[in-house]
Order: sequence, then C-alpha cells, then structure tokens
Amino acid sequence: MRVVITGGTGFLGSVLARRLLERGSLTSPAGSRQPVEEIVLVDAAAPAAPTAWPASVTTVIGDVADRGLLSSVVDRDDVSVFHLASVVSAGAEADFDGALRVNLDGCLAVLEACRARESAPRVVFTSSIAAFGGAAVRSVVSDSSKLTPETTYGTTKAICELLVNDYTRKGFIDGRSARLPTVVVRPGRPNAAASSWVSGILREPLNGEASTLPVEAATGVPISGYRTIVENLVRLHELDGAALGSDRALNLPALNVTAGGMLESLRRAANRPLGPVAVAPDPAVVSFFSRWAQWSDFERALGLGLAVDADLETVIGEYLEDFLGGRRGE
Amino acid sequence: MRVVITGGTGFLGSVLARRLLERGSLTSPAGSRQPVEEIVLVDAAAPAAPTAWPASVTTVIGDVADRGLLSSVVDRDDVSVFHLASVVSAGAEADFDGALRVNLDGCLAVLEACRARESAPRVVFTSSIAAFGGAAVRSVVSDSSKLTPETTYGTTKAICELLVNDYTRKGFIDGRSARLPTVVVRPGRPNAAASSWVSGILREPLNGEASTLPVEAATGVPISGYRTIVENLVRLHELDGAALGSDRALNLPALNVTAGGMLESLRRAANRPLGPVAVAPDPAVVSFFSRWAQWSDFERALGLGLAVDADLETVIGEYLEDFLGGRRGE
Repeated sequence: MRVVITGGTGFLGSVLARRLLERGSLTSPAGSRQPVEEIVLVDAAAPAAPTAWPASVTTVIGDVADRGLLSSVVDRDDVSVFHLASVVSAGAEADFDGALRVNLDGCLAVLEACRARESAPRVVFTSSIAAFGGAAVRSVVSDSSKLTPETTYGTTKAICELLVNDYTRKGFIDGRSARLPTVVVRPGRPNAAASSWVSGILREPLNGEASTLPVEAATGVPISGYRTIVENLVRLHELDGAALGSDRALNLPALNVTAGGMLESLRRAANRPLGPVAVAPDPAVVSFFSRWAQWSDFERALGLGLAVDADLETVIGEYLEDFLGGRRGE
Repeated sequence: MRVVITGGTGFLGSVLARRLLERGSLTSPAGSRQPVEEIVLVDAAAPAAPTAWPASVTTVIGDVADRGLLSSVVDRDDVSVFHLASVVSAGAEADFDGALRVNLDGCLAVLEACRARESAPRVVFTSSIAAFGGAAVRSVVSDSSKLTPETTYGTTKAICELLVNDYTRKGFIDGRSARLPTVVVRPGRPNAAASSWVSGILREPLNGEASTLPVEAATGVPISGYRTIVENLVRLHELDGAALGSDRALNLPALNVTAGGMLESLRRAANRPLGPVAVAPDPAVVSFFSRWAQWSDFERALGLGLAVDADLETVIGEYLEDFLGGRRGE
C-alpha cells in the first residue's frame, strides 16, 4: 500500500516516515495488514537539508490545497493519508488568507482526493489542543469540552475535525483526528508557532545556547515527545474506527507540565553544562497561551491503547540520543 | 443603510424583510441608528409567487457562493447582512457537494464580502440546533454544549459558527450566530427539511387536510414561531457585540414541546374542524431526530433580552391571523 504524508518534509512528517519504514506495514482500507510499498511526502517546500531516503520514499513539492496534486498522489485504493500540513499558530494569525487556504482548503483537498477512491481510505488528521479556547481553557480540556478556539489556527483545526467526522459518517473516508499537545523537543531553529519556545527552552540550553522563556513560569502546557506523538499517530491509524464512535477526534496523551517544571526536568535530565534561560514574558506569546488549554485530559485515548510519555526527563533523553549523539553529559 | 438578506425570497427571509420595512431602522456599523434605505434579497431562485415589494426592496437571483455576486451587493460600508441562505437538512444529506457549496462556500462568500468593507459590518447568521449531535443531544443542549453534529447540514452550520467567531475576533465583521429551533408554522407545502413535518402536523390539519406524524409522539422538538424568530434575529443584530463575548453563537429561545403535545395544543388553539393526523414513524425521519437535540436551554439568550413565545397556542394563533384570515373557527 501507499502512505501519503502531507507536511511530510517537516520534522514530524519525517519522523513519521522513518517510523513507517521501520514498521514496514499498516492496516489497509480493506482491513488487512499490508506492506508499506511507497511513502509519498507532500510538502510546500523542499527541506533545507534534503534527507537521504530509500527509493520507496518520494517527495512531491506543491500546494496542499491543489486538488489535482492531491488526487495525483491519492490515485490507488490501498492508500492511507496522514494529513499533517498546516500553517502554524502565529503564522496563521499573521496570514489569515494563507491559513484558510492551507488549513481549510488543504484539508478539503485531502478529503476529496480520498473520497474519490472506492475504498474509504484511513485518514489521520493532526488537529491541536489549540482548537480549545474561551471558557474551556480555564479548566481541564477533554474530548467532551466544547471547541471555541480563539485563534485562526485553532479555528481551522476545529473546522477540519468537523469535516473529518462528516466525511467519515458519510463513508467517504475512515477518519481519525489527533489533537496534538505541544511537541518537544523539536530540533533546529525556532519556527512561527507561538509555542516555539516550549522546545526552545529545552533545546537551546542543551546546545549550550541562551534561551528566553516568554511566559510566566507557572504557565501550564501539555506536551509530548515526538517519538510518542508519532507512535500514537500510527496507533490511531491502526485502531478499528468503530471503537472511536462518531466523534473521531481525541486529545492525544500528554504530560501536563508548567514552564518552570520543564526547566527543573531539564536540569535533572541534562547532566551537562546548560545555556542560560531568561524569563521575559512577551505579551504576544502570553496572549496566545492565555487562550490555549493549559491542562489536558486524555482518558479516552488511554482507553483506546494510546501511549503516554513516562516523564519529561525521558523525552529529553530521547532528544539527546537522536540529535546530540546520545551524550547525556558523559 | 442597506440590509442584505441571503435566502431572502424564502419564507423566513421575506418575513424578516417585512419586519425591517415596518421597523424602518437598524444600528449601522458606526453604531448609530440609521434608516434602512434598501433591502436586497439574494436567493438562488425567484419565488414561485412573486411578492409585491416597495421600491426599496430589490431581489437578486444568483448563487450565494458566487463571491463576485456577494461583493456586488455588499458594496457600501453602512451595510448589514442577515445570512439565511442554506441547503436544508434532508437536502444536504442527499446532496453533499451542494451542501458544501451553498452552506460553506456561501458563508465564506458572505464573510469575505463583509471583510472587504472597512466598517466590519454586522452579520447575523442563522445556525441551527441541528448543529448539536452525538452525546450532547441525549440531554439538554445549551451554549456550552459541544457541537458534534451527525448530519452534513449540522456540520456546515457548526463550521460557519466557528468562521463567524474568528472573522469577528479578527475585526473583519461584527458577527452573531443564532441557533434556530424548528420554525413553525411554515405556510405552503412541505420542504426538504427533515423537520418539515413539525409545521405539517399543524398546518395541514388547520387547512382541513390530512397529515402524518413521522416520529413517535414522545419525540421532543424545540420550536419557535416565525414572528418570534424574526424578532430575535433583529434583536440579535441590535445587541452590542461585546455583550456576546468571543463565542458569538447562541441558542434562540424556544418552546420545548413533544410531537404529541403539539397536537394537543393544536386542538386547543384551533377551534375549527381539523384534518386528521396519522402517526406513522418513518425510519429516515426518526433517524434524523435521534441525532438532533430534543430539549434546548437558552438562558443566555434570555439574559441578553431575546424574546420567547408565550405558548404554542399563541404561535398557532399568529399563523391563523397571518395566513388564514384570522379565522380561529369563528
């Protein structure tokens, strides 16, 4: 079977592609375990540093909202799509039209390409706990909390959850939406996500660089390591859709931590000289986080067999292993 | 100022236009009460029986998803839009593509036309309590209930609520979404709404005709008279947006009745020979109503000064007065 990953050249998309190569198989639309013969990474831009992929991995550069492009890669019945492509949070606030095109029209292009198949392909869509907002974020957010996002990013994620549910109900696809917590530890440089600092206050100190915490230390933020996130996207794909019921969207498991608690975990896990972290709240970032969920409930995901990180120290250890040659200060 | 009513040649749109002609003025985007100089009714088709409107009322026939058309009628800053155009419930189930075009692209066309103005026009969007579904409908639905619609109609309504909220938050419009209960007593013939029978079991007997109740008598259905609905759309338009907060969507006040209770009210109110009503549950209609809210909470709307019908007998009396020459069996 073929697996299409939109946003596939991004960090999470690439980790997912590697995980699928390792795993070698997925459940096909017909319901049987099939070898993953091809992985197609669809993305808006080629990665700055091209990855050396095996021949079974193809990269297609184009606009995810281009319906012809999506149809051309979703052109067989034994196909699954992981739809990760998205304009991120602060980027969506800065470019409303771009956010609607990529996040809304892009989602519709994916759904329509899958609908054109006879097989009702499995589609795993990465929503976000940023889809919560308003009154809901003043307490714990769960799968039964109303989605009243207060960012354009969250709005488009909430809309796509609704579309995934209805395309699934109609039998056009077999959809699943994962509300991602903030992913740590992203390697590389800061990005346009308002949550970019969450990786930054771990990554920069580990690299011996200075970093800034742009919110109060008490700010809560549900996080998860990228290995666990990707493992959960695969597990979500593999679940029997009936187990999910009619609302196919769920909060992925997360560690509910505070910014200050993250810095304490960093000191415990690093065992190496750390770059300094200055606390300097930035009103724009504080505003984003005041409208985001600070504590996530994910009982439903656990009940369905999804994984949760042991603790943040373990997640930091994974980053050290994957990106800093396993050196935990040895 | 100009008022644009999409779906304007439909029943509710026409009643609204007449109400605005009577009232004569609305609050303009600048915040002051202004005379309604022009009313533009935008609709997909001319009404079968053309209404004799005064010169200030213009009818524009076209596709509500046509952005050029919407821009051409929303071409001044002192403008308000009542966005009523919609493919209805059973129609949307039968024609998924049409539902997305009219209900989603149509909403975007309205919002973009308003966004192009400098004035952030007031937009009143008619959502529906059909936007509720899933676990929510097994108890009372309120403004804090999660929207997990299980129909394409409800899905598009829930999506448009999210869009109205975000366009409002961005300052592009000053939006308000009214979740309409089922409107009674619609005159004329049955339509493609799965709720068509709710008017039918009142209207047909009053006209001396036979009617069929296609659900169990115990089925709950929140309803409201068209006079009250239209009055509430106007009141919602007139409210200070700040009073609504960031979630601009609210349940309109309703009478929470059962199908059987409606027939009892009919006998009390009619005082005339009534056509017979047969009870013959239709699986397709029963299925729709099993996924719809049967009891609505509207405390927030009442707190904001919206009106509620006195009782169903009064609503039936209004229909008799408006469409049957006031004859209550005299």
